[in-house]
Parts: sequence; structure tokens; C-alpha cells
Amino acid sequence: MQSSLGPLGSHSAEPASGVSGAVKPSLRDQYEAVRRASEALASGLSPEDQMVQSMPDASPTKWHLAHTTWFFETFILAEHFPGYQPFENDFRFLYNSYYKQLGSHPNRATRGTFSRPPHARVMQYRQHVDQRMMDLLDNGVPPEVADLVVLGLNHEQQHQELIVTDIKHAFWVNPLRPAYKNEIAQIGGGPVSPMQWQRLEGGVVHIGHPGSDFAFDNELPRHDFLLRPFRLASRLVTNAEYLQFMDDQGYRRPELWLSDGWDTVLAQGWQAPMYWERNGDRWQTFTVAGIRNVEMNEPVCHVSYYEADAFARWSGARLPVEQEWEVAARSQSVSGNFAESGRFHPAPASNSQMFGDVWEWTASPYVAYPGFKPGSGAIGEYNGKFMCNQFVLRGGSCATPQSHIRSTYRNFFPPSARWQFMGIRLAADES
Amino acid sequence: MQSSLGPLGSHSAEPASGVSGAVKPSLRDQYEAVRRASEALASGLSPEDQMVQSMPDASPTKWHLAHTTWFFETFILAEHFPGYQPFENDFRFLYNSYYKQLGSHPNRATRGTFSRPPHARVMQYRQHVDQRMMDLLDNGVPPEVADLVVLGLNHEQQHQELIVTDIKHAFWVNPLRPAYKNEIAQIGGGPVSPMQWQRLEGGVVHIGHPGSDFAFDNELPRHDFLLRPFRLASRLVTNAEYLQFMDDQGYRRPELWLSDGWDTVLAQGWQAPMYWERNGDRWQTFTVAGIRNVEMNEPVCHVSYYEADAFARWSGARLPVEQEWEVAARSQSVSGNFAESGRFHPAPASNSQMFGDVWEWTASPYVAYPGFKPGSGAIGEYNGKFMCNQFVLRGGSCATPQSHIRSTYRNFFPPSARWQFMGIRLAADES
Amino acid sequence: MQSSLGPLGSHSAEPASGVSGAVKPSLRDQYEAVRRASEALASGLSPEDQMVQSMPDASPTKWHLAHTTWFFETFILAEHFPGYQPFENDFRFLYNSYYKQLGSHPNRATRGTFSRPPHARVMQYRQHVDQRMMDLLDNGVPPEVADLVVLGLNHEQQHQELIVTDIKHAFWVNPLRPAYKNEIAQIGGGPVSPMQWQRLEGGVVHIGHPGSDFAFDNELPRHDFLLRPFRLASRLVTNAEYLQFMDDQGYRRPELWLSDGWDTVLAQGWQAPMYWERNGDRWQTFTVAGIRNVEMNEPVCHVSYYEADAFARWSGARLPVEQEWEVAARSQSVSGNFAESGRFHPAPASNSQMFGDVWEWTASPYVAYPGFKPGSGAIGEYNGKFMCNQFVLRGGSCATPQSHIRSTYRNFFPPSARWQFMGIRLAADES
Amino acid sequence: MQSSLGPLGSHSAEPASGVSGAVKPSLRDQYEAVRRASEALASGLSPEDQMVQSMPDASPTKWHLAHTTWFFETFILAEHFPGYQPFENDFRFLYNSYYKQLGSHPNRATRGTFSRPPHARVMQYRQHVDQRMMDLLDNGVPPEVADLVVLGLNHEQQHQELIVTDIKHAFWVNPLRPAYKNEIAQIGGGPVSPMQWQRLEGGVVHIGHPGSDFAFDNELPRHDFLLRPFRLASRLVTNAEYLQFMDDQGYRRPELWLSDGWDTVLAQGWQAPMYWERNGDRWQTFTVAGIRNVEMNEPVCHVSYYEADAFARWSGARLPVEQEWEVAARSQSVSGNFAESGRFHPAPASNSQMFGDVWEWTASPYVAYPGFKPGSGAIGEYNGKFMCNQFVLRGGSCATPQSHIRSTYRNFFPPSARWQFMGIRLAADES
Repeated sequence: MQSSLGPLGSHSAEPASGVSGAVKPSLRDQYEAVRRASEALASGLSPEDQMVQSMPDASPTKWHLAHTTWFFETFILAEHFPGYQPFENDFRFLYNSYYKQLGSHPNRATRGTFSRPPHARVMQYRQHVDQRMMDLLDNGVPPEVADLVVLGLNHEQQHQELIVTDIKHAFWVNPLRPAYKNEIAQIGGGPVSPMQWQRLEGGVVHIGHPGSDFAFDNELPRHDFLLRPFRLASRLVTNAEYLQFMDDQGYRRPELWLSDGWDTVLAQGWQAPMYWERNGDRWQTFTVAGIRNVEMNEPVCHVSYYEADAFARWSGARLPVEQEWEVAARSQSVSGNFAESGRFHPAPASNSQMFGDVWEWTASPYVAYPGFKPGSGAIGEYNGKFMCNQFVLRGGSCATPQSHIRSTYRNFFPPSARWQFMGIRLAADES
Repeated sequence: MQSSLGPLGSHSAEPASGVSGAVKPSLRDQYEAVRRASEALASGLSPEDQMVQSMPDASPTKWHLAHTTWFFETFILAEHFPGYQPFENDFRFLYNSYYKQLGSHPNRATRGTFSRPPHARVMQYRQHVDQRMMDLLDNGVPPEVADLVVLGLNHEQQHQELIVTDIKHAFWVNPLRPAYKNEIAQIGGGPVSPMQWQRLEGGVVHIGHPGSDFAFDNELPRHDFLLRPFRLASRLVTNAEYLQFMDDQGYRRPELWLSDGWDTVLAQGWQAPMYWERNGDRWQTFTVAGIRNVEMNEPVCHVSYYEADAFARWSGARLPVEQEWEVAARSQSVSGNFAESGRFHPAPASNSQMFGDVWEWTASPYVAYPGFKPGSGAIGEYNGKFMCNQFVLRGGSCATPQSHIRSTYRNFFPPSARWQFMGIRLAADES
Repeated sequence: MQSSLGPLGSHSAEPASGVSGAVKPSLRDQYEAVRRASEALASGLSPEDQMVQSMPDASPTKWHLAHTTWFFETFILAEHFPGYQPFENDFRFLYNSYYKQLGSHPNRATRGTFSRPPHARVMQYRQHVDQRMMDLLDNGVPPEVADLVVLGLNHEQQHQELIVTDIKHAFWVNPLRPAYKNEIAQIGGGPVSPMQWQRLEGGVVHIGHPGSDFAFDNELPRHDFLLRPFRLASRLVTNAEYLQFMDDQGYRRPELWLSDGWDTVLAQGWQAPMYWERNGDRWQTFTVAGIRNVEMNEPVCHVSYYEADAFARWSGARLPVEQEWEVAARSQSVSGNFAESGRFHPAPASNSQMFGDVWEWTASPYVAYPGFKPGSGAIGEYNGKFMCNQFVLRGGSCATPQSHIRSTYRNFFPPSARWQFMGIRLAADES
Repeated sequence: MQSSLGPLGSHSAEPASGVSGAVKPSLRDQYEAVRRASEALASGLSPEDQMVQSMPDASPTKWHLAHTTWFFETFILAEHFPGYQPFENDFRFLYNSYYKQLGSHPNRATRGTFSRPPHARVMQYRQHVDQRMMDLLDNGVPPEVADLVVLGLNHEQQHQELIVTDIKHAFWVNPLRPAYKNEIAQIGGGPVSPMQWQRLEGGVVHIGHPGSDFAFDNELPRHDFLLRPFRLASRLVTNAEYLQFMDDQGYRRPELWLSDGWDTVLAQGWQAPMYWERNGDRWQTFTVAGIRNVEMNEPVCHVSYYEADAFARWSGARLPVEQEWEVAARSQSVSGNFAESGRFHPAPASNSQMFGDVWEWTASPYVAYPGFKPGSGAIGEYNGKFMCNQFVLRGGSCATPQSHIRSTYRNFFPPSARWQFMGIRLAADES
């Protein structure tokens, strides 16, 4: 299940030089690469597997394949392809996720009932749209359309990550606990080095996306931010460390928790990270390759913001704000354990891991940057309307395409969410 | 999608003469007929269609196919087939519906996540069990095993009806509103004759199943019941009549409703039977063949007990108690519009229709007959533990196999249920 | 808190001879007695106590005092008192409980917010209505008005019982666990005699209220019912016996429970009757006089239908149907531990106790008797619209006025209700 | 109902000079003033009125009177008064609001059931604690105790505001809609002046509480913040302006709303601010003096964050972040329409009104300032554990004591809350 996601980021149809000096693929090639990568993720799943919606927050694989196609059809072909005929008129409604300005859309909890159109028809839909997109790209597109194409590709990459996290959840709810992959390729990793505090300077820093490459609107505008000196952990929190918190009654001590977090612990009966289960005298966890023992030297994963925050408080530390994270990350290369590895499981903790492995919860609520302007029309609903009741996560995970991530990237989830690959990096004030 | 359900009812492996004097098929032939009929019902559905669970009360087709097989495996093969090896050990848990004495079972709301085992594997499961059941039947079985086989066949026939009603619901939730059948075969029907009151004598009557043929435990024991003289409507309530109720503000007048019924009307926003929708100036309804105009001369269908009761009150009549219904029905032959017609839609109202077309709500809560004894062991959970908060329906519907029904048959659903083919026949006191 | 409830039951304004041959009090005297009895029940409660609504199903004492007054005002004075001026126009809405035909009414969950009108004003309301009722009665009333007065008095007696059960619940929710009474007067009771089976004949029996005395519409019409021979327990189930059920894992064995009952056990975490709590190595229970040890020889109380049914199944017996209970009770005098004793706690188990102490769950869903006709107009909503999803209880409790009860009396509650004084008497088939 | 709240803010027991050069009252005098002010707010309410809890988020007046007393007893007397005997041992549990480190506490939804202790007993509790607090203050207290006293007084002032907003809600739920005050004193106000944009400079500003006067921990530490130039509205949004939004289908256009906001609009059926109701052709609103016409020139009030945000978007503007508000407010004197006026209703819109009238929603989620340190022990639960899923409001309202507020003060509520006096001030980027 090796994917071949190409680098993204140019909003020009022309080749451009990348960071490393290599030639950046054409928009056409990028389109081809991303689209095929989605299909590769689904290739080991039967049409039945691709039907499952195991909770309202998750979606069936087939729906992801269709909705990403709908995005290109709706925002590009319908507007910019001369004489475009929709593949099916009903799809404009059926595969709209949440864009209210395009009219109504199905209740998201019903996506698991879409047995029709069948999988084969969805694949035809992809072909139909791909052919016309290729025609369009072959003929060259004006910059504003190229921008939309790049947006559509980044959109599809986001859904690639969800394909993985949603099928993991789906297979976990199935009592047979099937595996998405046969095994998890080992990534070497000896004993975990001691966590060290990296000291960073304060001062006015530039936050948000620079330059002309692609970025989501929520990474803009680039602006100045006054940062205090701070310390950031040299590595992620490990399962071994998290078990110390659990052994110290972390899930039974309300003084460690936010009020809403404590209510959630009680209401949900949380006693460990998501996917963990006690088997005799040891903890096991459900992975994309089935049930495994919890590995002590791996980063803790599938914890909510509430758990990350409680762990940090128990540790005598705190979570970083997103600007601290961004400043610390920007000097590092975007490399690590990403979706391209096909592993879909965090690698053992080592130094850094700022990118890949697990999304890192920050202490920053997801709100607009000063001067934020959402796009006009329905596309403006992409990010802005979710700026409430969510927290920012940074750095990407083992299910994120490498070409999709960057130091300014802002992911966001409600504080109770756990089904993404979410982990913890500590920060502290400079004393 | 013509099914070929054979007559059922003997609990002897030997041929026996049926009501009509015809030779009753052997148990082996009955087994073959029923099992194939289930598969015929599913034959037009893709594996994806067979995955859909559109509400917790409904189940995927594939689950029905597997669970009915599990029933034979668990209650017959595992106990009575020498050296039986289970097809898959996990299935004993996975396809247990609600038999607590067999250990835990999955939450019923998760059945839609069972993409694994795939459809093909479920069909192998059926074959595996069928072969061994055939071996067993070929060798002859003692009466108590023959009784279990007949129970298993009747159980499967119940799930045949649910396959139809659940897929109808599934296709209704899908915004594309696909059709289960290409069209509904017309059954002739001119103008509806006026409803007439049939007068029936009172006195001590025998209620419950007589003789040695198969019956569910809830039809037993046969017992005496003192009935008052009463009147029963000569035909079912039609859509035309129900529309009069609606036009007379039936859904807005609390004095017509049971208290729980009125609360349900408000909470659910009911304004018409299930599956009805207003399209301009006319009412349409979703059928197994898609959206159609509401036909005035068809029996009203997909109404809850609450609606049936309110309609009866508005009419100045009442619903019959189940004993009244049984006494009136026992002299009639069991014929009409059943699953065998493959129509899966009520035929236009005509005289009688006591059997088939729509289940008829009675005013009788579903409780034990005097002297009721459930079976011993897990099989005792089949009917008895549901004798609470439900009402009895009689007569079968257009989705019931004809050989499954009889005048003593007691179906039961909560008073708010509407997704079965449920309709209304009025009764009145003899004045 | 001794009350002085006089005998009720005549629907004539003329004195009539009672069962014992004594002269029955005049309607005026009955009115006076019942109205004062309600106030006596509230006399130990402060206006603040009379404000508490501890759950939507329960009502504040003050509301009970006002609503019973509203009943006389609405159904009698407004219709039959020449030139009657309502005490307050708003009260017609404010104190309507559920009579939809009189217009809208407040959501019942808001009754605890009615700080205004203050308690003193409610007492003035009572006075205002009492004076006019007295005038009316002094002048003599036609029979149909006398019937309504008797209905109003019986209605108020029902609310007297609710005053007791609702304040018990209110004081239980208050963490201070205050007492409604200083102590529970002891009623002698040595060791409990062994339970014996009383055998009763079958045959056609008359069920329902005979004669011309008052009865609720749901006790009518008197009708013939064919009963099978049966056995009835000579006494109630005791706490000692119920503890055996608990010690035998009764609350953990799903095979003992109705399906809805088991779901309720899990959802509510039931492990014992309501008001019980474990204190070290013994069980205690909250009573009207505060927390006490569970007395082994007292009848088990505050159990739901689900628990009564599970206990009976565990015992190898069943609950009686209401007709069995009625036939067995009708030969006994209506005497025992009633509200008049001011004890409000069941007396130790002894023979009989068919009347008083605890309401006895029957296996009969609450439905209409054959030929049932509710009253016309709003008064017809009194009983009929609740004939769904409830079970019949018989015999009255220690909180029921003695003059209120009779062998044909049908009380009803949903199967999950526990806050009334509800207990268990076993029955069995005649073998 | 004029209150006489004295200025607060010194954490020294010694007199200190106030802003105006006047002598600041002694801590003893401050204590006396605040405690009496609470009682004055309750003085027009009967013990019954003081029982009402109309929703889980609101509390009965009597509970507020008791809990504020509990605060002094628990955090000061129990620790610092030699040989202190608790008034009632049970109260330590009963009146704990949410301090988990002090042990368990009642479910907040049950506060309305606390008929016992009666009102008179709560007043004795207040006296008991007051006498000992006075003794303590007369003898002089060390600075750390003085700090706790000032905290306790500020805590009580917060509950004074809640007494007003909770009783307003309680009286609104009561169908009689009683009034808390006889009338709303008019505060002059002619036509509303046009809204103007005040331009403010950017740069590094100091945010958070300076100096040694009292502040809550969430206002600390004072820190530098880099602000961009911005514009702030010269006055609050009026009812007239909000009606334009409503008339422009504001509640029906999802593109104007945050996603969670839109879901709330649909789920709650919002069509106008809280307390508004349509009466024929005009809008009326429930006030502390009963139902009144909506006055066009008053600031819109009782809107959620969602509504404030949607209105701002519709206006082409935005809400200010809290730092913008603080910078703009710090040059203004803290004067306006506060609780001391006894009006408890916003005054007509005029210039400024930065302080008093209505709390102003900011676009800032409620999170910790950089370097935030909660107090140690249970008192540390005061503010910090709520830093999640809430938004900051600034400036105080007509129910806030004037001496309680300052430019650095941070109030916080969930984005769906409406029952406080909450309004809207617009901001915009400097273009």
C-alpha cells in the first residue's frame, strides 16, 4: 500500500523549483499523483468495507472518494470547463459535505446508507471528472483556476488522512477487529533518549504562511506575534510516560483536569487512550494491523486535548501555544513518518518528530489570525466557519501525506476528539 | 423476484396432508424452499446494499442472511450434528441477535459496520450450514429436532419479511431513493365498496393455536376466552378515508390521541403516515418501486398504533382486540397478497383482506396467554421477554410469506413503530 | 399528622348506608373532610418544602394543593355556580395538569418554578373555592353535579397520595435527607408466617365496579370474564425474600428479565429497590422518617414492574393478572395500613395485606375494559388517554386514603416507575 | 432595591487612597457593604422565590446567599479563625459548588431541591459567619488572609450578578411572568447618535492587571502583546440595528453563522434574542420589571456569542479581540449603568458604554495568559479549570457592581449562553 504522493504547493501550472532545488512536478502530474494516491489507500478495501460509517464524525471510504471528486466538479469543472455536463445531477446534493451556500446537503450521519451509487459508479465518477480535469490542465488554466486545483488537491489529501483514520475506527467497531494492513513495518528504534528542554528565544516573530506557495486561508495572513522565551520538549511523550500518569491515578484525580475534561472522563468512562484495552496484566492497542501490545517507546497516541492537557498539568508542564510550535518547527525539515511510508502507526520516540507520527495538540483554540479573510462564496465555508470550540494541532501524523504538511499548517479538532493520530509534546515557561 | 416459499407448519419429518388435501412437502424440501427464498429476496441487492443499517431497529440484509444461518447452527447443528465444527468460532458471538443465555452479543446498532465477513463469506456460511442440515435431514431426525428445524424455518421467514421492510427503509433514507423492484405489479381493483359492519356472536371461544402443527410459543396454550358480541369492519381503512382524518386536522387535535401518542406526534413532527411526502398539491409515498402517488383505494399503510387508535377514535369506532380478530379470521382461508406475489405493496382495498396486505393493529397489548410457558434454555428468549410495551398485530402483510401465517399468529411491535406494513381495521361494540 | 379522611363513594348528596351499616356522611361533610385532609398532609411542610419538584414525574406539594382546587373550580364552579368569578384568570392555565381540551397548559417539568403565586395565595384560592363549594352543597345539587363533586374528592385523594410520595422523593434528593415525619409508628409484627398458596376457582366472574357507588370510568363497565383456576400468595413478598433474589445475582442475570427491563437495569445501574443504599455490611433505606435499616419482615417496596416480574420469574411463579387479584380481594374487607394511620410506611408482612401497605403490580397492561366509554368533554381525558405503556396496580398503599380504595380500583404506572409504594404478590397457575 | 456596594480592590487591611483621591474603605467596611448588598438584592424575594432553579445553569437565590457564605467559612474561617466551629458540618458538602479538591459536591441541577435548610437558617448561617469574620477583621489579618477576604468579596459580587440574572430567568419560566422590580427607572436617552469608528494604534501593549490592587488570577500575569491598528465602534449595537439583521433573514442564512452556531439556531429554534417574543406586529421582551416593548434605542441584549458573531459578519465587521477591547477601555473611567443603579436593564445606547449596561462578547476564547499560574490548592480551581470552550466578555453589565469591574476584567461564558446581560460592540481592521 505504498502511495506515491507527489509534492504539492505550487499554484502555478508551470513547473517550479522546489525547496531542494528539484524540479517541482507540473500541476497535471500533481493531480494525477494525488488522485491515484487516494485510490491506492482504498485498494485493499472491498466495496463493503468502503460502506462503513462507524460514527457520525467518520465517513465511509467510498464517500471520501466521491466527495473529493465532487469538489473538483463543483468548484472547477462546473465553473470553468466550457459546456460541462454533470456526471449525475443528484451528486451535487448527495456529495456536498457542508457547503450551505450550495443548497442543502444530506445529514452526515446518513453517509453509511449510500449503497447506491455503487462503488463502481463512484469510480466512474472519478474517471469522468479526471478526464475533464486533465483536458482542462492540458490546455492550461489561468492562475485563479490553478489555485482552485491546488486547493482541491490539498482537500483530497486531507480526506486521504481521514480515509485511514476512519477505516481504523470502522474496523475497531467491528467485533472481528479486522486489519487494514497485514503488518506494521518496523521502523528502527532503540531505547528512548531522555526528554530534554529546548530553549527558544522570545521576541516578535512572523507567524503564518509566507511567500506564494499554497496555504489554506486559515494560515493567513502572515503577521507579527510577540512571543515570550519558552522551552519545548525535545521529543514526544511516550506510552511509558503516559502509563506513569495512569498509574498515578491520572484518570481519577479531578484536580488534574479541565472541568469539561473531567465531565467527559466520567461520562465516557475513559481510563486510557482510545483503542487501548486491558488484556490480563498488560495493555494492548488496536492498530491498522490489528491488536498489538502497547509499545513503551512509542509516542502516546489517540488522546484527546483533555488528556493531553491533564498529562501536561500532572507533569508540571503545559502544552505549547501554536506560535511556539511554529517557531520551533520552521527551522526543521519536513521529514519523518508520513502516509507515504504506508505504516500508519507512529514510529518509536526519538529526537524531534515535529513532523509526522502524531498531530500535536496545542493550547491554542482555533480562531482566526488577525486580518483573516475567508474566500468569497461557498469556498469561504472551507475553514472559517469552524473557528469555535476546537483546538489547533500541528505537525501532521503518520496518516498525513508528507507533501501536504508545513510548519504553518493548522489542523483543528474538538477537545474531546481522539480518533485521529493525536499525541503530546510538552512546553514550559522559561524560568 | 418471485419467491417460491413452500408451505410450512409440520413438525414432523414425514409428509402430511395439508389443508387443501395436497401432500405437504417433506421437511427437507421445506428447508430448501425457505432457504432459497431468503436468497431470492436478496438477489437483486448488491453486497453494498446488503450492508446498510438505516436505523438501530433495522438490520442489513447480509446480517439477516447470516443470523438466520446462525440460528440453525447454534440451536441444531451444534447440539445435534455429531462432531459439528463451527464454520467460524467468532460467528457464535457475531450473529447472536439477543440471546443473553448464549453469552454477550454485539450492540444491535453496530450491525451496519460488519463489512467483514464479506458477502461471499456469508454465502459460504449458508452453504456450510445447509450441507450439514441436509445431511441431518436426509438421515432423519427425532421429533424434537424436527421441531427445532421447523422453528428455524419460521424464524427465517420472519427475517424474510424484515429483509423487505428494512431495505425499504434503507432505500428511503438514501437521498437517491433507489427502488428495490422495478415496478409494482398491478392487482386489479376498481372502486372500493362501502365499508360494512360484520356482526359476530359473543360467547366462550377457543383462542390460541389448536392441533399439532407448528405454532410459536406465544400462540399457546389454547384457552377459553369470553367474548362479547361485536362488529368488525368488512374491509381495511383506505388512504381516502385516512386523508379525511388528516383533512379534519387529525394530527392537530390532542383529544383524539393517547397521551403518549400525542407526545410522539409533537416530538416526531408527524403529519402523515410514514413514507408520505407532500409534493405540490398531492401526497406521494415511497414504495419498494420508488416514489408514487398515494392511491386512494389502497389500504392506509405504515401507520403506528397511535395513529390507528386516533383514527379509530375520530371514526367513532375502535380497534379490535386480538381475540375478536382471531375469531373473525379463523373461518377464512389464508389467501391474499403475500410475499409470494413479489409485489411488496398492499393491494387495493376489497372485501376481507384479513390475511396479507397489511398487518392489522389490535387494541391488545402483547402479553402472555394464561398458562404460557416459554421454551427452556436460550430458545425461551425467542418471544417471552418482549411481552411488555408492545401491541399485537394480526394477519400478515404483503411482505409475509403465505405459508408463515395463520389466524392465531401474533406479531408485535411498539406502538410508535411504523416501518412495517401496518394498517387499520375498525371494530365496534355491538349496540 | 393524623388525617381524618371520611368515607367516600356515594354519588348522591343524600346520606346512604355504608358497608358497615353506619350512616354515610353527607357530601358536604365529605368535601370538608377531604379538603382538610390534604391540608393536614402539608401542614408540617414549609412553603419552601412545598416548592420542590425533584423530577418531572413528581410535583410540588403547593401545586397539588392548587391543582385539586382548580379541578373543583373548573369542572364544577365555572359550570354550575351561578355568576362564578374565577379567583384568578391565570390559574385556569397555570394549574391545568394535562386537559388538552381546556387549552394549553404549562410543561409539567416547570411546576417547581411557580414561586408565585405564593403559598398563602394558594391557601386563599382554596378558601375561595371552598366557600363557594359549600354554598353550592348547602343549596343542594343535582345528581350530575354531585357526581362531579365526588369525582373531585376522589381526584383530590389521589393527589393526597402523591403529596406523600412526591415529598418523600424530594427529601431523598436533598443531600441532607430531611424527614417528613419524626418517626414511623411501629405496627406490631413478629416473625413472618410462611407464604402459602391460596387456591381459587375459575369460571365466569364479574369484573369491574358494581352498583351505584362511585367508581372511576376505568373500572367500568362491569363485565364477565372467564378466569382459570389459579393460586395466589397469602402474603406479600418480604425484604428478606427479595434479598435472596439479590444475593442470587438477580440484578445480573438477564434471563430473569423482560428485555426492556434488562435494558433499564443497565441504563439506570439498578442493583436494589429504589431508596436502598448500602452502608457497610447492611442495607438501609430512605423512609418518610429518614434513613433506617431495611427490616427483613417488611414487604419489599419501591420496586418497578420489571423488578416484580423478574423476582416472580426467579421464584418460579408469576404476577397475578388484575382479574385474579380482584376476585381474590372482593371477599375481603377494605382495611389495613392506609394513609389514615399517618405511618406512610408498609407494616410488617402478615397474612393478607391485600389492601393498604403497598400497591401490588399485576401482569395486566392498563387497557380499556370491553365497552369502556370515557366521559364526554375534557373530563374524558381523566383516565382513558393513558391506556398505553402502563401496568395496573391494585389494592392501595400506606399512602392511600382508606375511603378511596376498593377491590375494583385500578391504579396504573409505567413499568419503570418506582417512587410510589409498590410491592409484589405472587401468583401461580393451578397445576 | 438600591444597593450600596462600596469600592473594592485593596488587598490590604489598611485604608488606602482610591483613584479619586478619596479614602478607600477599610476591609471591614468593604466586607459589611458587600454582604449587605447581597441581602438587599434578595430582600424583595420570598423564601419561595429564593428556591427556584429554572435551569441547571442557574441557581436559587438562597443557594447564592449560602454558597458565598460557605466561601468565607471554608477558605478563611476554617483555616484562619482559631478554634472555628463549622455552623453545620453538612454545609461543607452541601454548598460546595465545584471545588473537587474539597471532596464531592451535589449535582448542580439539584440545588432547587434544597428546601432545607430553610431560608431563615441560611440567614443565620450568614450571621454566624459574619460575626466571626468581623472578629477576625477587627483583630487585623495578615496580608495573605486579607487577600483571601478580598477574593471572597469579589466572589460574592459575582454571585450578586447571578442573583439578578438567575431570578430574571426564573420569573420568565414562571407562566405568570412576575416582576423582580416594580418598574425600570428611566435613564434619559434621545435619538441614538450614528455609530462611529474609533481608530486605535497598534504596537506592543501591556495586557493584564497592573499594580498591587486585587485582580483575579486569570487577569495575570501582565504581559506584552503585539496589537495591530484597529477600529472600534463608538457605541453598542442597538435593538434597531439588530432588527435590521433579523429583517434581512439573519436567522435563516447559514452563511452568516459559525457551523456550531447554525446547528444551535436550528436545534433551539432561535429567531430572536432571548426573552424576546412576538406580540402581534411588534416585538416585546421580558425585563426585570415584566414584559415591555423592545426599545429601539437600547443596546441589543441577551444574545449568544453565535448571534453576536453572525451579526458582526452580516455587518461586514467583526467582534474585537479582548486585547483590543482592553486597550480601548483603559483610558476610560469605570462609570455607567451598574448594579448600584438598581435598574438591571441596559440604558439607551449612547457614546461609549464600555463599562456597564451589557457584557461585550469578544472574539477571544477564554484561555490562560502566557505565564498564568492558578492559585495552589482548591482555590486554584476558581478560574483555571474553565479555560476551554468559552469566550471572553468584557466591561460588566447593568447587573455588575461598579466596584467589581475594571478594564482588565475577564468574564467568560460558553458561546451558546444568553441569560446574562450580553451585547455586541463591533470592531474592524484598520484598512
